[in-house]
Amino acid sequence: MTRRQKRFGARPEAAAERVAGGGLLHRRTLLTAGAVATGAIAAGRVGTAAAQTGSLEVPPWMQVPGRPLSGYGLPSKYEEHVQRSALQPYGDMAPASGASFTPLEKLEGTTTPNGLHFERHHNGVPDIDPAAHRLAIHGLVRQPLVFSVDDLLRYPMTTYTRFVECSGNSLSNALPEPRQVPAGMIHGLVSCSEWTGVSLATLLDEAGIEAAGTWLLAEGADAAGMSRSIPMQKALDDVIVALYQNGERIRPEQGYPMRLVVPGFEGNMNVKWLRRLKVTAGPTHTKDETSKYTELMPDGRARQFTYLCRVKSVILRPSFGFTVPGPGWYEISGLAWSGAGKVAKVEVSADGGASWAEALLQEPVRPQALTRFRMPWVWDGGPVRLQSRATDEHGETQRTRENWYAHYRPTQIYHYNAIQTWQVNESGEVSNVYV
Amino acid sequence: MTRRQKRFGARPEAAAERVAGGGLLHRRTLLTAGAVATGAIAAGRVGTAAAQTGSLEVPPWMQVPGRPLSGYGLPSKYEEHVQRSALQPYGDMAPASGASFTPLEKLEGTTTPNGLHFERHHNGVPDIDPAAHRLAIHGLVRQPLVFSVDDLLRYPMTTYTRFVECSGNSLSNALPEPRQVPAGMIHGLVSCSEWTGVSLATLLDEAGIEAAGTWLLAEGADAAGMSRSIPMQKALDDVIVALYQNGERIRPEQGYPMRLVVPGFEGNMNVKWLRRLKVTAGPTHTKDETSKYTELMPDGRARQFTYLCRVKSVILRPSFGFTVPGPGWYEISGLAWSGAGKVAKVEVSADGGASWAEALLQEPVRPQALTRFRMPWVWDGGPVRLQSRATDEHGETQRTRENWYAHYRPTQIYHYNAIQTWQVNESGEVSNVYV
Repeated sequence: MTRRQKRFGARPEAAAERVAGGGLLHRRTLLTAGAVATGAIAAGRVGTAAAQTGSLEVPPWMQVPGRPLSGYGLPSKYEEHVQRSALQPYGDMAPASGASFTPLEKLEGTTTPNGLHFERHHNGVPDIDPAAHRLAIHGLVRQPLVFSVDDLLRYPMTTYTRFVECSGNSLSNALPEPRQVPAGMIHGLVSCSEWTGVSLATLLDEAGIEAAGTWLLAEGADAAGMSRSIPMQKALDDVIVALYQNGERIRPEQGYPMRLVVPGFEGNMNVKWLRRLKVTAGPTHTKDETSKYTELMPDGRARQFTYLCRVKSVILRPSFGFTVPGPGWYEISGLAWSGAGKVAKVEVSADGGASWAEALLQEPVRPQALTRFRMPWVWDGGPVRLQSRATDEHGETQRTRENWYAHYRPTQIYHYNAIQTWQVNESGEVSNVYV
Repeated sequence: MTRRQKRFGARPEAAAERVAGGGLLHRRTLLTAGAVATGAIAAGRVGTAAAQTGSLEVPPWMQVPGRPLSGYGLPSKYEEHVQRSALQPYGDMAPASGASFTPLEKLEGTTTPNGLHFERHHNGVPDIDPAAHRLAIHGLVRQPLVFSVDDLLRYPMTTYTRFVECSGNSLSNALPEPRQVPAGMIHGLVSCSEWTGVSLATLLDEAGIEAAGTWLLAEGADAAGMSRSIPMQKALDDVIVALYQNGERIRPEQGYPMRLVVPGFEGNMNVKWLRRLKVTAGPTHTKDETSKYTELMPDGRARQFTYLCRVKSVILRPSFGFTVPGPGWYEISGLAWSGAGKVAKVEVSADGGASWAEALLQEPVRPQALTRFRMPWVWDGGPVRLQSRATDEHGETQRTRENWYAHYRPTQIYHYNAIQTWQVNESGEVSNVYV
């Protein structure tokens, strides 16, 4: 008996019970080794009987020596279509301003590879010489300080896995008509990395914060001088000056040679190419927090400093662009996250929200990190509407699109976190629908 | 009071107490926000006082628009020296056979970026067309099966973070004289990734293992036909057919389009470019498990099927190639791992093993995964010998080099896991020494 069978019980028939409409099975099915082989879901068997094990013919690539060792590897040429999708809202007028989206639907697990981490630049990626770059801490401090990269590399470091999400992520679902594009082009302004850097509290303590210093101004060394105000309480809590991303030094698009990571707070507060931290007695009201990144309320006023990326989830397999090849067994898979902490549960519906069943969360579930959820599903070939609904550890749950909009003006586009609906039609084609 | 201060107590003076010879401080120091700023370790202050905050001059890269968005990012040109180091033992005779080492000392955190995952090829990297690739399961099964990549993508997946280590890793420390090369060129045949794939138990259950099927033969689709025998008990436990590495499809050097991940077992059992799994009644005794990867015992016999990567650790900062710039505060940082499960503790010595102090382990500590350890240290400028010694959850502890060799013949080179010693001289230069 394998470890998993011992843990979850070898009762695939029981585990494969239907727990909600549209063919959703109990999530325990995924943890039961024998489940796929049982009669209960035999329709999903996809291995092809190999009467003659004909595949054992020696393929051409076994008949010649392969490529030698290399210094730095790249994806296979057959995966060259896996790219970020660029959006340049100002076209040739400002080619360096825009965003590129992580192709979430082509990825698996919870880590975003560095080459595919989403981008959002206000005036392009600066070409920074790390030997000349400096980080200054000044303002309401007892001792202004300047750090080189080498200085920072001497400090104690900390490592954690956290997502970064642009506050404009998913905004195209706020448009009047649903866009028929891959999930990543709607929701792909979120990525998740293992960040390593120096605790900001350590550096601020060394400079010595004066009593009046209750806020920070953080400024990047890009041509936009992108800058945001950060409350001191957050700065002293879990913020780091990150130097490494997924093990290696941060990529230029992600802030080389250093950036802030401000867990759970909207993307542009995680200031890239960080050059300056000024301790202030209040928010600075920079252009980046007054002209943008505010929430337009029903009464026409704009709410400012609403940093938190609220609880959210999206089904990625299947999603727009996939064709479900026929009735049978599938795994529904997607990502959930919350800026407020850990994801507590994800529920999936296959009947447009009429009934729900709880998905399996891939361990370890970490705070402010992308969390993979999985749900076993038997498709009967009829039209279904797939939805996911995440709840975080504070009990906050995603709302429907209609309910979400009841809280804002129609032109409000930031912090969109309503439930995503994918319609699967009788041909197995998937489209984006509003319900 | 910040979250960390609440958790660990704001008593930096107490936390910075010396706990072992050579300047080692209590690991709690790293978790206390104010520690670096206190008088206790003021000698370690590295921020430079900025009387005029002169660094606030606008640097040249803020004066021109930056580079636009891109489809797939790469490291900064200033990081081009961060490469794998190739070792081709047969030179031009067999250019596609050899290994390349992860530059561990240039990385941080616990993830190995895909481009820097170590390589070990027996006849190069095959150029596999994923549409033509097949995986066959045959032998002692009720129903032989053949899977395409698309077939496998339909199965339930699982995600976990695990290291892969070559059984020849660290073998250069088994040579009579210590090599003066970076830590990664000695210990860099280990890397750690988030792997996602299909549970092998699921596929074997679908094929139906006959009662006599107690072993597996796993074969790769490279020109070496690299193959190993795997006990069925392990195959049914936690092995996956991995399709994704750190979120994206596996790189060619790591087995594109699919490989086995066999947690904790020596690298080449994690068969890359997987094409065939044959269920057998015993080990197959392939060339790759008889001519190599065995342990030479004192009586001259070779021990076979000693798969497990035993508990191990290495200090990476500082290590060979680093120069400690002067007396003062530093963080000692390194990696520990065990094929048997989780790392339970890592102890560090700064006096060549005379006294030891426990390091901080970066959470979450995962089984069969690289674990980052950190140790605060005040260097007084005199010669010291730095060592780390890991203990896993089963109580196994690394041995000294001398003690390790007492168990083997002098020419035995596989599974070397003795304690690494770095000597820091009075100029701060670091060298590899045997003690």
